[in-house]
Amino acid sequence: MPKKVDHEVRRRHIAEALHRVIDRNGLDAVSLREVAAEAGVSMGMVQHYFATKDEMLMFALEHLNARVGLRIAAARNRDSPRELVRAAVLELLPLDDERRTEARIALAYLARSVVAADLADLLRAALPHVIGFYAEQIRIAQGDGQVPANLDPEREATILFALVQGLVNPALIGHYTPEAVVAAVDYHLDRLFPCGNP
Amino acid sequence: MPKKVDHEVRRRHIAEALHRVIDRNGLDAVSLREVAAEAGVSMGMVQHYFATKDEMLMFALEHLNARVGLRIAAARNRDSPRELVRAAVLELLPLDDERRTEARIALAYLARSVVAADLADLLRAALPHVIGFYAEQIRIAQGDGQVPANLDPEREATILFALVQGLVNPALIGHYTPEAVVAAVDYHLDRLFPCGNP
Repeated sequence: MPKKVDHEVRRRHIAEALHRVIDRNGLDAVSLREVAAEAGVSMGMVQHYFATKDEMLMFALEHLNARVGLRIAAARNRDSPRELVRAAVLELLPLDDERRTEARIALAYLARSVVAADLADLLRAALPHVIGFYAEQIRIAQGDGQVPANLDPEREATILFALVQGLVNPALIGHYTPEAVVAAVDYHLDRLFPCGNP
Repeated sequence: MPKKVDHEVRRRHIAEALHRVIDRNGLDAVSLREVAAEAGVSMGMVQHYFATKDEMLMFALEHLNARVGLRIAAARNRDSPRELVRAAVLELLPLDDERRTEARIALAYLARSVVAADLADLLRAALPHVIGFYAEQIRIAQGDGQVPANLDPEREATILFALVQGLVNPALIGHYTPEAVVAAVDYHLDRLFPCGNP
């Protein structure tokens, strides 16, 4: 019996090669040829799994999101909404090599999304989940008296999400140290959850 | 007497063509050939003014920053630090066609800066000016009793800058309307300058 090829594993293998290329040189440099070389497979193999560069980019983004999502899910056993939000937020910030790489790749996708409608659709579909999660935790904490009742959970979630996204580039280009990034997040969370420290 | 060529005007003309190309297709698509076609000049002319693509990108970014800077300077005659900060912040957000175009281009530069050291240097050098301006206005407003004394001007400036940057992509891909973007900014400014309404 011939060995069964696990197509999902192959696709993920190619997606990870794609992300190493993006991390090294940005999205400009991405070609099927370069990804095939990085993955150690033929161009025909890449084309077998991905008809176009955009299809490959979309799959790889979903793979990246799933990976970050798993880490956020693993942080679910926190003591308070504040700690849960904090853990989820810090997974998106370039605080170590793994998250730096992910943040560089995510930024490349963000820039491309404003000229690639498919990618914009994918990102737009994901935003309500992330922002909604923050809003939900803020509402829960308000119910427990950990967040001031006069704060608007939706607006606060919008602001928190934007704040986190906006810290990525200055951190990546070395304007902020990882410690300064965490301090800015904690400063803002102190305001949002003044009674939410465990 | 032969007509004197205004080299600065030529360089700006090419820079604006470059930005139309970036706005249309992102930074991926930029080539000297395409910029020359867009500017209606020869490739030799583009190469006369810019030895490399990176040199052209750097000049064009400075040109863009200068244009936005002029609009911010024109907003200096505001009644209060809050109104001044608000006007400066809104110039960076994609609230109309001109600012949408600028924001799309700025985002392309941000993404490239994490893989292009020259561009990272340029952006990093600019950050203290923008963030320092916010901090200065917050300190002035604190002196006038318009901002709570317990707020940290530097941290607040860091957070405000990040928040504004982080609103750009969701606004560009249509997750927020321009009105929702302004409402989020005003919600945050209400907190920062609770006594700063004119």
